Amino acid sequence: MIGSCAFAATAPRFASGKTPALGFADFTRNAAPSLLGSRTPRNGALSARTGKRFLPIRATAVKEARNRDPPAAVSPDCRKVMVIGGDGYCGWATALHLSKQGYEVAIVDSLVRRLFDEQLGTYTLTPIASIQERLKKWKEKSGKTIDLFVGDICEFQFLESCFKSFEPNAVVHFGEQRSAPYSMIDRSRAVYTQHNNIVGTINVLFAIKEFSPECHLVKLGTMGEYGTPNIDIEEGFITITHNGRTDTLPYPKQASSFYHLSKVHDSHNIAFTCKAWGVRATDLNQGVVYGTFTPETQEDEALINRLDYDGIFGTALNRFCVQAAIGHPLTVYGKGGQARTLEFSTRGYLDIRDTVRCVELAIANPAKLGEFRVFNQFTEQFSVNELAKLVTKAGEKLGIEVKTQSVPNPRVEAEEHYYNAKHTKLMELGLEPHFLSEGLLDSLLNVAIKYAARINTSLIMPDVSWKKIGVTPRTLVSKQP
Amino acid sequence: MIGSCAFAATAPRFASGKTPALGFADFTRNAAPSLLGSRTPRNGALSARTGKRFLPIRATAVKEARNRDPPAAVSPDCRKVMVIGGDGYCGWATALHLSKQGYEVAIVDSLVRRLFDEQLGTYTLTPIASIQERLKKWKEKSGKTIDLFVGDICEFQFLESCFKSFEPNAVVHFGEQRSAPYSMIDRSRAVYTQHNNIVGTINVLFAIKEFSPECHLVKLGTMGEYGTPNIDIEEGFITITHNGRTDTLPYPKQASSFYHLSKVHDSHNIAFTCKAWGVRATDLNQGVVYGTFTPETQEDEALINRLDYDGIFGTALNRFCVQAAIGHPLTVYGKGGQARTLEFSTRGYLDIRDTVRCVELAIANPAKLGEFRVFNQFTEQFSVNELAKLVTKAGEKLGIEVKTQSVPNPRVEAEEHYYNAKHTKLMELGLEPHFLSEGLLDSLLNVAIKYAARINTSLIMPDVSWKKIGVTPRTLVSKQP
Repeated sequence: MIGSCAFAATAPRFASGKTPALGFADFTRNAAPSLLGSRTPRNGALSARTGKRFLPIRATAVKEARNRDPPAAVSPDCRKVMVIGGDGYCGWATALHLSKQGYEVAIVDSLVRRLFDEQLGTYTLTPIASIQERLKKWKEKSGKTIDLFVGDICEFQFLESCFKSFEPNAVVHFGEQRSAPYSMIDRSRAVYTQHNNIVGTINVLFAIKEFSPECHLVKLGTMGEYGTPNIDIEEGFITITHNGRTDTLPYPKQASSFYHLSKVHDSHNIAFTCKAWGVRATDLNQGVVYGTFTPETQEDEALINRLDYDGIFGTALNRFCVQAAIGHPLTVYGKGGQARTLEFSTRGYLDIRDTVRCVELAIANPAKLGEFRVFNQFTEQFSVNELAKLVTKAGEKLGIEVKTQSVPNPRVEAEEHYYNAKHTKLMELGLEPHFLSEGLLDSLLNVAIKYAARINTSLIMPDVSWKKIGVTPRTLVSKQP
Repeated sequence: MIGSCAFAATAPRFASGKTPALGFADFTRNAAPSLLGSRTPRNGALSARTGKRFLPIRATAVKEARNRDPPAAVSPDCRKVMVIGGDGYCGWATALHLSKQGYEVAIVDSLVRRLFDEQLGTYTLTPIASIQERLKKWKEKSGKTIDLFVGDICEFQFLESCFKSFEPNAVVHFGEQRSAPYSMIDRSRAVYTQHNNIVGTINVLFAIKEFSPECHLVKLGTMGEYGTPNIDIEEGFITITHNGRTDTLPYPKQASSFYHLSKVHDSHNIAFTCKAWGVRATDLNQGVVYGTFTPETQEDEALINRLDYDGIFGTALNRFCVQAAIGHPLTVYGKGGQARTLEFSTRGYLDIRDTVRCVELAIANPAKLGEFRVFNQFTEQFSVNELAKLVTKAGEKLGIEVKTQSVPNPRVEAEEHYYNAKHTKLMELGLEPHFLSEGLLDSLLNVAIKYAARINTSLIMPDVSWKKIGVTPRTLVSKQP
């Protein structure tokens, strides 16, 4: 039974020759010109279907076509996939992608991420529909049904009923509090983050053991678990020779927020249950995800994915593009504003279209029973300076003048360090990365431009300090746009 | 200010020449002869004070004398010590030892360990007094007051009031669920263990940051955090050369129960706050503790320490001695009953008299602000087979025939493995170990003999399985003696 899912990933599932179906993304032709000054889309391309020239947001459309074709048969051994946290940024894109590829998908989500936005006064740049509207629209567009279980996996009885009802072959677990700054707001949120993430994952492990022992856990971790060691970062394990003896051991972890630490704790807990109970698990140590569109989320505006740009949930590249679009200087933390070498605040990054593909590859090539497998899930390394330069250059092409501003680093982290992380295992399984091209920057920039009127600039600056976090629950005063 | 506490540990505090004050331990002369057959105390020694011959339980009495003398002045910078979990096995002995040495001690404890005994039908072999009676008796005997704060450190308001009221210079944190089998009873207890231990420690870290930033955290971890790697175990960190580069990183962890994992999680959380907030911390990775007496707990029967022998809270050596005393075969888990090499199920062990001294050494020589320091706290390594042989031999001297029985290992762990762990840092600070002599075995055996009528043999066998742990809260049927 093990390994029998591999066909879906190794077979040439993507028939070529079809023209891409254009989604609502053509909107970019009409995007907020007043903000742009003179915008000449020099890299525009012809749409294969309409013959119209469109902005570079569609420059990769032909490449995307493969993802839109009907998939080859999904192995019955990995057909039913439960996506925990399927209403979130990565989870929603993944759920749709898997559904499109022929997997039977159920979303399990407490929707608490939407509550965080209400509480913090943050919101996605893109106007997302309710989960009910999303799934209704997906059914309309694709003819496919995605089951929805609304509840908290920290409540075991709820999770138990999800497992008994859906009987998953694989569980993709995105269902955690995923913001480092959120975990550093105050003591109560630090505790919430660790409790929520650790207990949720323990519950998933027990549910697998008890109800679906063959089920493959695909767990989202983070590259941040490794920190920034002065040696190469391997994928999960490192072979150490010490005093004349050799062993391959878990790679040492040096996480730098209560959020990142919660992922380290999860990894240790999962590894233990693989050994003790024979659970099969893939730990995806994901880099910083950028982008908002996947082929499926582009099919209708009601399917659009969230795009966070605020100081709590926004990540560097997405935030930079939003800043550039409205003429706000790029806020580079710490020394990043100065000219530095490549080693400055370097991290691994990946396109959200690769996130969904990586998860699919993991599902289609499951770990063996009892195996704890770790993949580093990113495609390119960039320093923060490099990102800022890329955004500046892309802005120039759109006629936007982009400035950079150095702001005090709210985090405690090494700002200049060696960084070289391996990421070959997913490539070996067949990942064909979307590299951070100017086209993609244009697309992110254009999304920001379209929704510029929704941007609340007061949310952009970092407002959480790693050093100033206190014990008193922080009373949040919502910032009006 | 840093380092100014060192005097207490490096100065020759123990004036010699005094005769030991004998406590109630002389009881062993009258202990349960019917269980012993012909018992000739061949190793008996003369009491320096009374001239009476007494059993080897007092053979180390002269050595102990140093611990009974008034200590040299304790530095005011580390004088006030909060002992969280001070009603427990290690905590109680430590609280009394520190009080005797001149530290101002406060115990913080929820007393939940006593509740566990009620719930599980387990109990200490030695009849322990209530914490209130204990402290009253200690005041009578020593003239010293130990403050008591009863509450749960997972409730931050409680912990806050403890810190504000007592203003500790050091916090010794024993206040965690400390049994691996307990954490493997069922899902609810696995979750309880991780939640309780992780949140309690996070709260302590926040309390230090907010109320006592100079306060030194002395945290009890476990040697079990390391697992059984095929290379030497270092003290917390290991220098790795990899692909031509070198870094010193946290030693990789491979814990093998939800309890041991909770300690790994604590270690990572503490290390982060040392870096981010400048907390000073010493992580004591303690081996298996044996013994029950310390000079202070021997001063009166109301001060006696607990001695657990059941399958949940009892540890190997203590349990073996209880088994030997009542003619029960020593229950060696897994392959241990067969003749094996030294590498079989080897672990680090230490006498509880060394536990209290190690903690004192850590307090008296505090970590620097921002330093995360790890000491491996054990004095000798033994395989389970070696322990069984030592108990058998000691039994012979007391005229007891000791048999060994191999029982299925309830744990999932390597049974034959390399094991070589470093433990030099506490020695460098001045630890003079009590080695596992036959005398000590005699003393443990004799304690078991005295309280033999209290032994419930149905509690001895392991009753928790690492593999069979389920999701349903286990309904415990108390075993009648």
